[in-house]
Amino acid sequence: MQDFNVTILGCGSATPTASRNPTSQVIEVCGRLLLIDCGEGAQIQMRKFKVKFQKIDTIFISHLHGDHYLGLIGYLQSMHLLGRKNPLYLFGPAPLKEILDIQFKYSYTALNYELVFTATNTKQKELLFEDKCIEVHSFPLSHRIPTTGFLVKEKIKLLPIKKEALAEYKISVAAIQSIKEGGDYTTEDGTMIPNKLITMPPLPLRSYAYCSDTIYDERITEYIRGTDLLYHESTFLHDMLKRAKETFHTTALQAAQIAVLAQAKQLLLGHFSARYNDLSDFLTEAKPVFENTLLAEEGTTYSIK
Amino acid sequence: MQDFNVTILGCGSATPTASRNPTSQVIEVCGRLLLIDCGEGAQIQMRKFKVKFQKIDTIFISHLHGDHYLGLIGYLQSMHLLGRKNPLYLFGPAPLKEILDIQFKYSYTALNYELVFTATNTKQKELLFEDKCIEVHSFPLSHRIPTTGFLVKEKIKLLPIKKEALAEYKISVAAIQSIKEGGDYTTEDGTMIPNKLITMPPLPLRSYAYCSDTIYDERITEYIRGTDLLYHESTFLHDMLKRAKETFHTTALQAAQIAVLAQAKQLLLGHFSARYNDLSDFLTEAKPVFENTLLAEEGTTYSIK
Repeated sequence: MQDFNVTILGCGSATPTASRNPTSQVIEVCGRLLLIDCGEGAQIQMRKFKVKFQKIDTIFISHLHGDHYLGLIGYLQSMHLLGRKNPLYLFGPAPLKEILDIQFKYSYTALNYELVFTATNTKQKELLFEDKCIEVHSFPLSHRIPTTGFLVKEKIKLLPIKKEALAEYKISVAAIQSIKEGGDYTTEDGTMIPNKLITMPPLPLRSYAYCSDTIYDERITEYIRGTDLLYHESTFLHDMLKRAKETFHTTALQAAQIAVLAQAKQLLLGHFSARYNDLSDFLTEAKPVFENTLLAEEGTTYSIK
Repeated sequence: MQDFNVTILGCGSATPTASRNPTSQVIEVCGRLLLIDCGEGAQIQMRKFKVKFQKIDTIFISHLHGDHYLGLIGYLQSMHLLGRKNPLYLFGPAPLKEILDIQFKYSYTALNYELVFTATNTKQKELLFEDKCIEVHSFPLSHRIPTTGFLVKEKIKLLPIKKEALAEYKISVAAIQSIKEGGDYTTEDGTMIPNKLITMPPLPLRSYAYCSDTIYDERITEYIRGTDLLYHESTFLHDMLKRAKETFHTTALQAAQIAVLAQAKQLLLGHFSARYNDLSDFLTEAKPVFENTLLAEEGTTYSIK
């Protein structure tokens, strides 16, 4: 089974602390690396956690609060300085382009690589990106400024080849990809072996949903229904519900309620307010509502099985 | 003697590494805290090194390469979110205002405190700021884009009061500041004691010079002559002189030559290229030319005696 991993670079909220960085995470899926949000210091976190810096080729920015994008310009410039040539695809709210361009202008930077920017639609669900293996959708969240969540979905699952078939039919390395994609196999003596005989049924398609930042909003569950892993912000504990509402954020209890309504398989809480040192109360609050809940930790990789 | 300290938050160059952050430093002088440059992650470094975040009231930005200012917007926003009310004075190249304004606009941020911006003159020396105790000047450096250095100078030195005079004339606490500033003292019985009798000569005025980023340029020595501590960039070792010239940077050997020509008392090397892990060669190269040389280290405070 191919890796489908989420590595947390930052799970703090608006004001970083000595122990929690602003939001950023790397998604490994189908052999690609995607970056979702890029708070200040994300490139330094990538160095610390040995993320393959230049291998990321697609970046998704949820909204234009600083704790979700201020690390982007430095990261783009570092890739330039370190000789990147491959194009980079960037998705985010339309004004992001203007913010980047003005900073490139005054630092006299002409990037060595192509930066392909696409503005996200912050009003309705949209397919942002697809290749033969994955799709990434954006969908509206309810925050103080235009904001989207993201859904990363596997599209076509490769068929696992039966181990015993490899030996029995002397399957060549060159033929493996085509068989995994559903092709039949012709042996050296010209016999056609039907795909079904040599492969196993595909594993179910997996998905990852990212919802940060947002107020409690049940409408988002339609976009993320049945997701394997839901990252949902929980800036506050529920005793601060009033503050959560005022600032268009969510409590841990509410995030668990969203996970239940969305029939998610697992919930990953993040975007913790700087006021909390010990995060164990977030679990205590969420688990009675949604048992399969985890806390995001910087430098930790969460695998979707 | 009042503290005059330089605390290094970052001493890396354009591309940060896991162990070196982009440029930023805090100057403590005359009971004030100044910030010079504010590379990405500076606010996180302030947290780590327990710098009094909100006490900084004056910020100086040398130029608009990302590694010298990308941490500014996040730091300004954090002070806002944490309730700052006191005005903040910001000095830097004119377009910095435009870069900040566009980001405040799209994050819908109206700062709680007054941000007073003054554009620096990148063509000639200028007095940027003074209070009764210090002056800060900017002066042009020679880099790829408009850049200034900064000179922080003590202005008037308070006169130390002789210990024995305190007891002999029963000097009241209320009178101390006026005596330190040169005033005579009138005792309870009306006798006037001349200032010279009760004070010692002032200590010499101290200064700190910041030169980053710049190519080797002897013209800067006129602005910084006799400085107590010279922070000079040394992005490269001298075997990379060609690269240093191409990128308008300096080698460790050249920085030492500038320290000699400027008759500086001490040299602090910084802005090291990410290619160097072990920095001991920087000292080996600089010390034969200028013995009193130190390497900048993040989290270390350098005192000017």
